[in-house]
Amino acid sequence: MVSVDLEKQIEDQAAEVRRLKSDKSTSEDAKKDAIQKLLELKLTFKEQNGKEYVSASAPAPRQQKAPKEKKTEIKKEPVKEDKKAKDGKKQTKLGIEFAKAENYSEWYSQVITKAEMIEYYDVSGCYVLRPWSYAIWESIQEWFDTGIKKLGVKNCYFPMFVSNAALEREKTHIADFAPEVAWVTRAGSSEMAEPIAIRPTSETVMYPSYKKWVQSHRDLPIKLNQWCNVVRWEFKHPTPFLRTREFLWQEGHTAFAGAKEAEEEVFQILDLYAGVYTDLLAIPVVKGRKSEKEKFAGGDFTTTVEAYVPCNGRGIQGATSHHLGQNFSKMFDISFEDPSNGQKTFAWQNSWGLSTRTIGAMVMIHGDDNGLVLPPRVAAIQAIVVPVGITAQTTDEQRKELTSTATKLTEQLLESDVRAESDLRDNYSPGWKFNHWELKGVPIRLEVGPKDLAANQVTAVVRFSSEKRALSLDESLPKSVKGLLDEIHAAMYRKVLEARDAHMKVTNDLEEMKRLLDEKFIILAPFCGKPECEEEIKKSTTREDGEGAQMGAKTLCVPLEQPKEKLPSSCVLPACKSSPQFFALFGRSY
Amino acid sequence: MVSVDLEKQIEDQAAEVRRLKSDKSTSEDAKKDAIQKLLELKLTFKEQNGKEYVSASAPAPRQQKAPKEKKTEIKKEPVKEDKKAKDGKKQTKLGIEFAKAENYSEWYSQVITKAEMIEYYDVSGCYVLRPWSYAIWESIQEWFDTGIKKLGVKNCYFPMFVSNAALEREKTHIADFAPEVAWVTRAGSSEMAEPIAIRPTSETVMYPSYKKWVQSHRDLPIKLNQWCNVVRWEFKHPTPFLRTREFLWQEGHTAFAGAKEAEEEVFQILDLYAGVYTDLLAIPVVKGRKSEKEKFAGGDFTTTVEAYVPCNGRGIQGATSHHLGQNFSKMFDISFEDPSNGQKTFAWQNSWGLSTRTIGAMVMIHGDDNGLVLPPRVAAIQAIVVPVGITAQTTDEQRKELTSTATKLTEQLLESDVRAESDLRDNYSPGWKFNHWELKGVPIRLEVGPKDLAANQVTAVVRFSSEKRALSLDESLPKSVKGLLDEIHAAMYRKVLEARDAHMKVTNDLEEMKRLLDEKFIILAPFCGKPECEEEIKKSTTREDGEGAQMGAKTLCVPLEQPKEKLPSSCVLPACKSSPQFFALFGRSY
Repeated sequence: MVSVDLEKQIEDQAAEVRRLKSDKSTSEDAKKDAIQKLLELKLTFKEQNGKEYVSASAPAPRQQKAPKEKKTEIKKEPVKEDKKAKDGKKQTKLGIEFAKAENYSEWYSQVITKAEMIEYYDVSGCYVLRPWSYAIWESIQEWFDTGIKKLGVKNCYFPMFVSNAALEREKTHIADFAPEVAWVTRAGSSEMAEPIAIRPTSETVMYPSYKKWVQSHRDLPIKLNQWCNVVRWEFKHPTPFLRTREFLWQEGHTAFAGAKEAEEEVFQILDLYAGVYTDLLAIPVVKGRKSEKEKFAGGDFTTTVEAYVPCNGRGIQGATSHHLGQNFSKMFDISFEDPSNGQKTFAWQNSWGLSTRTIGAMVMIHGDDNGLVLPPRVAAIQAIVVPVGITAQTTDEQRKELTSTATKLTEQLLESDVRAESDLRDNYSPGWKFNHWELKGVPIRLEVGPKDLAANQVTAVVRFSSEKRALSLDESLPKSVKGLLDEIHAAMYRKVLEARDAHMKVTNDLEEMKRLLDEKFIILAPFCGKPECEEEIKKSTTREDGEGAQMGAKTLCVPLEQPKEKLPSSCVLPACKSSPQFFALFGRSY
Repeated sequence: MVSVDLEKQIEDQAAEVRRLKSDKSTSEDAKKDAIQKLLELKLTFKEQNGKEYVSASAPAPRQQKAPKEKKTEIKKEPVKEDKKAKDGKKQTKLGIEFAKAENYSEWYSQVITKAEMIEYYDVSGCYVLRPWSYAIWESIQEWFDTGIKKLGVKNCYFPMFVSNAALEREKTHIADFAPEVAWVTRAGSSEMAEPIAIRPTSETVMYPSYKKWVQSHRDLPIKLNQWCNVVRWEFKHPTPFLRTREFLWQEGHTAFAGAKEAEEEVFQILDLYAGVYTDLLAIPVVKGRKSEKEKFAGGDFTTTVEAYVPCNGRGIQGATSHHLGQNFSKMFDISFEDPSNGQKTFAWQNSWGLSTRTIGAMVMIHGDDNGLVLPPRVAAIQAIVVPVGITAQTTDEQRKELTSTATKLTEQLLESDVRAESDLRDNYSPGWKFNHWELKGVPIRLEVGPKDLAANQVTAVVRFSSEKRALSLDESLPKSVKGLLDEIHAAMYRKVLEARDAHMKVTNDLEEMKRLLDEKFIILAPFCGKPECEEEIKKSTTREDGEGAQMGAKTLCVPLEQPKEKLPSSCVLPACKSSPQFFALFGRSY
């Protein structure tokens, strides 16, 4: 509906860059800013179209370097395609047609659609979460909800509409969100007297109520959470799960009488967020604080869990837990009388959020050329049971035995809380089913064939590693399957951890940092913490125009656990004369 | 923000009624229509303000009949108020100041706010669902979600935004919703090229995807559900839970290859909806079909569960399950080739929804002059443990024993899945706590006092009946409490059922129907089913201007289980010459 003409933006920005370059009075910084913007636009184009942007007015040589036909060259044959599809059988092109390492953007798009996680939608930036992805969200919800309830947090629901007056109360905060706020101005055919905003986050929605509820220190703490949708009408190019105009999340909002309790909770929640990644999604994360430049607008400090995406070496923010200090409580007058001295005191507040972006991180990090790879603990189906080995010679009785074994086996697993299903459809070949469930990322396939039955076993095939293992077909089976699921989780986690650790390095040399970034590293470097230095580092790590264009690096976080190395005496930015305060983790990022 | 000047609307409508009455060329129908509208406006005012509307220009006698001071006269002394509140202790006015039978509207407003279910909000028609009411919604979600998953329904999430093109695809449907649709027209400071609607319901959001997903009969059935918010920007006066501009609900959308399966599911879902009321909320319902006039726009037929509100004799729609037939599938081209004859065939569809209105019905039906009365199965706290009998003579040791008994008891109950909590706050008196938890409707209070301990027992006090019962303080306690919770559920249900059955009567006499309506009855009457007759009955049961003003009656439903009486040969509307088709249940309603 709302379409941003990306190509026109790129052409305009390219013209601007040419103008600046030819204008001797332009500062180097202004040029770099303009180039950075051009690169971001081009990257967006690349993510969207799976190919480099080629200007219509570009000189001939470049057109030869990146001809339109190139797209077909890098197309791989579908990794596995059903050769046996017959009339009346499903003709869907099953396999993923792009290799993750070769055309990451097309690969991502195919995985999420062909695995039936996402359906595209006719409002730009909005996507349908199909049951296969929504079930992952339900697993995360259940786990995290249980965790926060143990901390005494209660669920509630605040309106999604917010008046302009409330929205604008905290100035720093709204300055950050204002450009992305969606406004309702009409109901039926009547114009509204005053437009009403849709929440981009609910600080300003909730805190007027908090003011009413806090009359005395006894009314604290308040610990509320809601699972809801929020809207941020971004104009950057959208990507399913990662950057969408409407998304689902939980937002916790707590208020305490003392700063210490509030700060403690920030880290309790951060641990739960880390748990979502490590314990459910099998993804290692670095816990840290956001830099001044990257922290939540209006808060005192932001903590974060940051994951690493091996295939492109980018960092991705996993979830953030903010300490708001007294900034919002002062603006919204959430106050009480301190019983020790009778003074008016403002509450100490936190807010924290985790969104459906988690699912995007999971797809990117674990997926492979055959499609999705689901970590066992969030998979809607953990084990798919498929009868195999039926030939023209198979008797009806043998068929029945296979089917009934598959059914019994599935029931046995379900009773032991393994999410199992059997695929008994007779209009699909076993080969088709193998591909189908591989593409959808089911952790274990259990094949039940005549030879297996004869040996009183089933064959377990692990999606993640393709490993095959025979499991005894007796009462021990659920235990074996559960053990295997745990093994898979641990192995998936370890694989990503090893890839990350092999690509995380300490340096205090800016030139080495640039080299490492291009080699898909994230870098721990001594840093003074100042926003202007972070901006400089971003600019100097931006790679100009052309095939190898790359966005600049930013701080992902200041890791809570600092490297063992002694902090050098100078900041990684040679021009900076301040002392480094800590090692910050730098990387190109989502 | 958007405020409707209700008083001005009433004055304008009253002027219109006067004009019509003095104009001899006006038909009786037109007069009645105008009067009906005036009455509805006045009722809205009464619901909002807890008193009759008094015109500023009204003659003196009426002002004497309903003086402004009257409001204070009907104020009851707070039913129980803490007399012992001391400095530093909470000074909140605890009790409900209005009797349910005397000032229903103020009573409702006080119950939902003082029981901490609702907080008012600065966008008209939007309310905050606080944890005490949200927990009820969570109970309902868990129960219903389990139920539909057993039927093979899967959860998903579709965008809340809908393009105008999709929204307008089914004409009858959108005609019904268009006046209430909220439109987003601006993002940040940019006007959108095309306004985007916020879903009032998701038929038109979802079905374009269904079209893509259905290629063959093998792709059916599709059974999806989502838990989400929807927006209907009504201009009638809002009431928390019952009529709000944003509300939470679940909406199920299913598509089948055959009409029979689809119709079967409509009734399976209806049974689950009935279960939410009877098994969770302890409210009896009548299952039935909606009349042509009241059915869902664009559907083939609508089924409903209808509850009865004893205090005012009004019916309230509990939840609806619609059979959409092929209307939407034809508009959205959800079709497949029938394998038996190769013909293009359209899918048969259902949609069904249950909203947070359930909570409003529960408050209205079970609440009493002391506040909320929670049905045990949805109560966030089912048993509150309160130490009592501490006096100046109580030794520290005795205090500790009371506290530790209360704590152990609570743990014992929690282990047996009774939602228990102990209130050990030392800055509130037991009397204050009794009132507090009564107001909040906790089903059982367990008092632990020195005398109880001596007799190795606790005293259970039932919120619903004020009954006291001694329970042995041993390992049998959780079982006793669980048994008592079941008893309470059954007794609450029975009480409402008896009240309803005493106020539900069969008649085929319109005059008797009018009388019965004023006596808070709902009426089973023979009915031809035609919309124009229903409109006539509504008009003729509308009671004109003045103190006893009453809205007209409409059909609540055509009960699936018809009365045993033989269907008379004529419709309850004497002017109607058609044959009655069934007994319809008529009533004034929400």
